[in-house]
Amino acid sequence: MNSDVSTLPEIYPVPGFRLGTACAGIKSPGRRDLVIMALAEGSGCAAVFTRNAFCAAPVTVAREHLAAHSPEYLLVNTGNANAGTGSQGVRDARQCCDLLADLAGCSPEVVVPFSTGVIGEPLPVTRIADGLPVALADLSEDGWLDAAQGIMTTDTVPKLASRRLDMDGHAVTVTGMAKGAGMIRPDMATMLAFIATDAALDGDLLQGCLSSAMAGSFNRITVDGDTSTNDSCVLVATGRSTLPRLTQADGHYNRLAAGIADVCRDLAKAIVRDGEGATKFVTITVEQGATSDECLQVAYTIAHSPLVKTALFASDPNWGRILAAVGRAGLSDLNVEGVTIYLDTVCIVRDGGRALDYTEAAGQEVLRRKEFTIRVALGRGNHSEHIWTCDLSYDYVRINAEYRS
Amino acid sequence: MNSDVSTLPEIYPVPGFRLGTACAGIKSPGRRDLVIMALAEGSGCAAVFTRNAFCAAPVTVAREHLAAHSPEYLLVNTGNANAGTGSQGVRDARQCCDLLADLAGCSPEVVVPFSTGVIGEPLPVTRIADGLPVALADLSEDGWLDAAQGIMTTDTVPKLASRRLDMDGHAVTVTGMAKGAGMIRPDMATMLAFIATDAALDGDLLQGCLSSAMAGSFNRITVDGDTSTNDSCVLVATGRSTLPRLTQADGHYNRLAAGIADVCRDLAKAIVRDGEGATKFVTITVEQGATSDECLQVAYTIAHSPLVKTALFASDPNWGRILAAVGRAGLSDLNVEGVTIYLDTVCIVRDGGRALDYTEAAGQEVLRRKEFTIRVALGRGNHSEHIWTCDLSYDYVRINAEYRS
Repeated sequence: MNSDVSTLPEIYPVPGFRLGTACAGIKSPGRRDLVIMALAEGSGCAAVFTRNAFCAAPVTVAREHLAAHSPEYLLVNTGNANAGTGSQGVRDARQCCDLLADLAGCSPEVVVPFSTGVIGEPLPVTRIADGLPVALADLSEDGWLDAAQGIMTTDTVPKLASRRLDMDGHAVTVTGMAKGAGMIRPDMATMLAFIATDAALDGDLLQGCLSSAMAGSFNRITVDGDTSTNDSCVLVATGRSTLPRLTQADGHYNRLAAGIADVCRDLAKAIVRDGEGATKFVTITVEQGATSDECLQVAYTIAHSPLVKTALFASDPNWGRILAAVGRAGLSDLNVEGVTIYLDTVCIVRDGGRALDYTEAAGQEVLRRKEFTIRVALGRGNHSEHIWTCDLSYDYVRINAEYRS
Repeated sequence: MNSDVSTLPEIYPVPGFRLGTACAGIKSPGRRDLVIMALAEGSGCAAVFTRNAFCAAPVTVAREHLAAHSPEYLLVNTGNANAGTGSQGVRDARQCCDLLADLAGCSPEVVVPFSTGVIGEPLPVTRIADGLPVALADLSEDGWLDAAQGIMTTDTVPKLASRRLDMDGHAVTVTGMAKGAGMIRPDMATMLAFIATDAALDGDLLQGCLSSAMAGSFNRITVDGDTSTNDSCVLVATGRSTLPRLTQADGHYNRLAAGIADVCRDLAKAIVRDGEGATKFVTITVEQGATSDECLQVAYTIAHSPLVKTALFASDPNWGRILAAVGRAGLSDLNVEGVTIYLDTVCIVRDGGRALDYTEAAGQEVLRRKEFTIRVALGRGNHSEHIWTCDLSYDYVRINAEYRS
C-alpha cells in the first residue's frame, strides 16, 4: 500500500532535538542504518518497552539507563535486533553506549540504545563504531527524514508525522517517526517510535502523555499478531518552546497530549498501511460489549484470523469467516441472535444469520475499497473499542519466507 | 503434502456400519457431495461438537436428535456448511432429516445431520432431496473410500484410518474417516470425523473412549487457528463383533480405547499433512512446564505465529521467531535463562540466547526435512504436551483467497 503514503506530510523540526544518520554497513552496504538523536540539555524523556519475556539486549540496557539518568543521546541501529543474543548481546549494547560516550564526551549511562532487525545474530559492534563519528557529525534538527529511513527494516516507506500547535501565542511542535512492518502486535509499545516536542513538562505528565497516546495508537494495531522482542517507544520534551513549563494536567496539557496522541495515531496507522504485503487498511470496531476487554478480544480474534485476512486480500465478502471468528473469540454466554455485523454501512449479519436485505454485490463493493470498517455490535453492553489491521497477501508470505536470504 | 499420503492405508469394513454416496450437485456438478451412513439396530453413538458460539444449524439439530434418540442414520453434505443461516438454516436441516426419514421409513429424530463447506449460503435442499435416493441405494459396508471423498472440501486427499484388534480371539475393527484442511483449530471436535467399531459398549464407556481419543488427536492439531462453526466428531459402536459387550473400564476397554485413539490420531495427523498449502508436518513439543495448560499455551503460540510458519515454509532456521513466540506466550515470571529450544536434536537456544554450539548449517539441515519437531523445554516443571501443525505457504493464501470464486 506504499503508493498511498508516498506523499509524506510536512515535517516540522523540534527545537532542541537533533538527528544524525550514517551508512554503517550493518547488514547491507550503502543504506542508512545507524541513527543518533541528541537531546538538548534539560530535556525530559518517557519510554515504554515490549512485554515480550525474551526482550532484546538493548531493551535491558535502555531500561537501566533511563531509570538512572536523564538521557542525552538515543542510539539506534537497524539490520540487527541484538535479541536472543544472551549475555554477549548485553555486553555489545553497553559497548556501543561506551563508544558513543567517548566520542561525545558524556557518560555512557546517558546514552540509550535501540536495535531492530534480524533476531539472534551477534551485533557487528566494529561496524557501528566506524559509523558513529559520521552520524555524530550529521546531527541536525532537520535530520528527521534521513533518520526515519535509517530505522527502517522491511518497511517500504519512512513513517513520519508532525503537528504544530498554537497555545496562547506560543508555538509548540510535536514530531515523530516510527518503523515497523512485520512482527507487529505491540503490547504497550511498538517496534520503534521516537516522538519529540519542544514543550516542557514534568516527568509524570510526560509519561502520562505517552501512556494515553499509546492506548489510542500503537496498542490498537496488529499486522500479524507477533509481539516483537524489541518494541520501544520514546517521547522526548526538549523544553525549547517559549511555552511555560507544564506542571499540571490543565487545558494546555490536554492540548499537548492530544497533539502527541495525533502524531502517534498517524504513525500507528502508517505502520499498518505499510504492513508486510498489505493491500487493505481495515478498521475493526466492536461495540455494545459488556467490557472494553471483551471488545478487544473479539476485534483481535477477527484481525488475527488467517481466513478473514485472506478473504480481505481477495476482496471476497466471505463474511461467514468474520462470524466464525466472533463465535470462537471466547466470550462466555454470547447470544448469537443479538450480534449484528456491518461492512462499512452494509449490514451482513443480523439475528444469528445473514441479514435479509444483504446482497453479495453490496458486500463486494465495500471489500473492493482500499479502506473500510468491519463493525461488530455484540448487543450486550455499552463498551466499544477499535483497532487497525491489514490483509494477508502472497507478499506477506514472500517477504517473510525470504527475509534472511 | 498430498504426495506423502496418496498411499491410503488398508481399510477394514465395520460390520453393521454401511455408507452410501451420491453426486447431488450441491456446489459443483459431478463430484461426490452427499453421504449417508446407516447404523445397525442397537448401535451406540457418542459425539462431540464445536465450541464456536456461532455453531451451524446442523450442529444444533444433531445435538437435539442425539440427546433424544439412538441414531439410525448420519447424513452429511459437503459444499455448504449451513452455518450463519439463522432460523431458515435450522428449518432446512430438519427438512433434510424429514426427507431421508420418509425414504428410509424411520422417524426424523433418528437422522443426524452434518454439513461442511461455505458459510452463509442457503442450503440447496432440493438438490439434496434429489441425491438422497441414490445415496440410500448405494449403502454398503465397503463404502468408506467413496464416503471419505464425499465429505471433502478443500482437502486434496481422502482421510481414512483403520485398525483390526484381536481380543482373546474375537476380531474387533475400528475404522474412521475425516475431512478438514482449513479453519482447523478444533476445540473439543474437528471439522467432521466419523469413526465406527463393531464392538459393543455401554454409553458412558463409548463417550469416554471418544473424549480420551479426542484429547490426543483432533484437539492437538492446528492449521490456521480458526475453529470452525461445524466441527463434529462421531463414534459409532455397532456391536456386531463376537466380543461380549463391554460394561466396565477393564483391559478389553483399554485395548479398544487405544485402537480408537490410534485411528483418531492417524486422521488428525492426516488433516495437518493435508493442511491448506502445507509443505511441512511439524510436531511442537513443550516440556518442563508448570502445568499442561501452559505447555499448550506456548505450543499454540508458536504454531499460530505467521512469522514462524513462513520461516518453516522457507526452510529458514530463523529461530529468533520461535524464541519471540515463546516470549510473548503470556507465561508469568518466565525465566528466559532457563528455556532451551531444539529443532529435532539440534539445540538452538540455551541460557537465554543462541546455543554456543549451534550452527546455521545444522538448523538448516533439520528445516529442510518434510517432518521435524520443535521442542521447547521451559525449565519450570514436569508437565509436557505436544501438538501437530504445518507451515504457511503461498498456496494457503491462494486457496483461501480463491475459495469461493
